[in-house]
Amino acid sequence: MPLNLAADNSSTDYINTGAWSKKAIQEAEKLGKSVRVTASSEDKNFSYIPVDYSINSDAAYLHITSNNTIFGTQWNSYPDTGDVPLICDMSSDIGCRPVDISKFGLIYAGAQKNIGPSGVAMIFIREDLMEKSPSDIPTMTSYKIVGGKESLYNTPPTFAIYIVKLVLEWINKNGGLDAIGAINNKKAQLIYDLLDRGSFYSGTTSKDSRSIMNVTFRLPSEELEKQFVADALANSMIGLKGHRSVGGIRASIYNAVSLESVTALADFMKIFEKSNG
Amino acid sequence: MPLNLAADNSSTDYINTGAWSKKAIQEAEKLGKSVRVTASSEDKNFSYIPVDYSINSDAAYLHITSNNTIFGTQWNSYPDTGDVPLICDMSSDIGCRPVDISKFGLIYAGAQKNIGPSGVAMIFIREDLMEKSPSDIPTMTSYKIVGGKESLYNTPPTFAIYIVKLVLEWINKNGGLDAIGAINNKKAQLIYDLLDRGSFYSGTTSKDSRSIMNVTFRLPSEELEKQFVADALANSMIGLKGHRSVGGIRASIYNAVSLESVTALADFMKIFEKSNG
Repeated sequence: MPLNLAADNSSTDYINTGAWSKKAIQEAEKLGKSVRVTASSEDKNFSYIPVDYSINSDAAYLHITSNNTIFGTQWNSYPDTGDVPLICDMSSDIGCRPVDISKFGLIYAGAQKNIGPSGVAMIFIREDLMEKSPSDIPTMTSYKIVGGKESLYNTPPTFAIYIVKLVLEWINKNGGLDAIGAINNKKAQLIYDLLDRGSFYSGTTSKDSRSIMNVTFRLPSEELEKQFVADALANSMIGLKGHRSVGGIRASIYNAVSLESVTALADFMKIFEKSNG
Repeated sequence: MPLNLAADNSSTDYINTGAWSKKAIQEAEKLGKSVRVTASSEDKNFSYIPVDYSINSDAAYLHITSNNTIFGTQWNSYPDTGDVPLICDMSSDIGCRPVDISKFGLIYAGAQKNIGPSGVAMIFIREDLMEKSPSDIPTMTSYKIVGGKESLYNTPPTFAIYIVKLVLEWINKNGGLDAIGAINNKKAQLIYDLLDRGSFYSGTTSKDSRSIMNVTFRLPSEELEKQFVADALANSMIGLKGHRSVGGIRASIYNAVSLESVTALADFMKIFEKSNG
C-alpha cells in the first residue's frame, strides 16, 4: 500500500492501536516512507481507540486498523478525513457489520476471519487512487496493474475465491450485513453484560472501544484464569486464552461463531462465577 | 527474485526462450536492475532452446525458464553455471521428471500445473542466497523473512498446501519422479512419433528442445487445423488450439493427463490423418 500510494514521498499518517497497526507502520518505514504516528493508545496498553487525532491535510493517507484482535478494541465509527484518503486494515472485522464504504480511499483485508479461507485477500480501492501506482514497483504489488486487469493479471486462487463467494451468499441468505451486524452485536453484548454486572469478570478495554469480534477480560487472579480456560476446554470451548501481551481471557466471536455458541459461553461464565466467585 | 538477489545492482543474466522469460526480463528491468540477455531464441520464434550462451562470472545470477508452454520447448538438460547461481522458473514443468536440485541456486514455481491448485507457489533456495535479501523490500517478498520463518510469517494458504501434500503423496504412490518422468516421456513420445513419421503433422520445435509437457504442431493448412480442433472437441478432447503467437495445435499433457488420454489423442490423430491426409 505505501509503495502504491506514497510514491511521491509525501508523509504517511498512522494511528497506532496495537500489534497490527505497528506492523503497518514498520512496513512503511522499511519502504523508506516518512511516517507520522498521529495518535496512539500505547500509553494504556492499547486498551482504547484514540479520539484525539489530527488529520494532516498534506498526508498521502491516514491509516487505521479497524479491529485489534489482541487488545479487543474496534473502531465503532470511522474518522472523517476530508481530502486525505482513509486507509483501513479490516482483516479481522470485514463483513461483521455494514460499513459506509464512501468514507474510505482503500480497505484491505485478508479473508480468513469472516469472509473465507486463508490464501486470498481483498482490496477495495477508489478508482482515482488506483492510478497512483508507480511503474517501478513489483508487478504483483501494483494496484494499477492487478486492479486494471480485474484481478486476473495472474492465475488467481480460484478455490479460495469460490469459498468467498459461498460465504458472501451465506451472508446474503442470512439477511445481509444489517442482520449479521445485529447478531454480532447481540453476541458481544451477552459477554460484555457479564463483565459489567459485577466484579468477578472485568473488561480490559474502555467501553466505547469494545470490539464485537474479540472480547477480552480478566478474572480476579491468574490462577482463576488458568482454571477458567481448563474448565472451558472440558466443556468443549477452545481458544479462550488471551494473548500473552494482555493476559487473561479472549473470546473470539467472528461471524462463524453462532449466537448459540456465545450463549453457551455466557452460561458457562455464569456457572464458573457462581462456583468460584 | 531480483529484489532479493540483485540488491547490490550487479548485472543479472537472462536467457530468453519465450513469453515467460520475457516477463521475467521485464520485471527485472522494471525494478531497475541491469539486465543482460545472454542468449535468445526469438530469431526463430522461440522454436528452440539456445545451446550457445555465455556464463558471465560477474552476474548476480543466470535466469532460465524450464518449460515454455506457448512454444512447446523445454530445457532437457540444465546449464552448468559454476559460481553463478542458476535461477529457474519451473512453473509449468515442476514435478514432471527428476531434477538434480544441486545445480540450482533457486527454483520457483506456481503449483497450478503439476503440483496443486492455483493460489500457492513454491521456492527452493540455497540457504546462503536466502541471506542476501536486503531489508528495505516489502516483507512478504523477502526470502530471508518468509524463509526464515519457515513460510509461516503470514497465515499461509492452508487448503492449497493441503492439496499440494495430497498431490505429492500421489506422486510417491505412483513410484516417485522417476516413474512419473518415464510416463511423461512415453506420453510425449506417442505424439512426437506421429509428427516424425510423415508430412501431415509437423512439429514446430527443434527435436532437441521438445517439451514433454506441451506438444506443438501444425497441420497442412489452417483450415485443417480448425477442423482438427472441432473434431477433437466432438471426441471430448478440449484445449487443443495452439496459442495465437504460434498457431496450429498444442497438446498440454501435464502430470494429470493420463497415458490413456494421450493414447486416445494419438489414436484420434491417426484417424484424422487417414480421413484428411
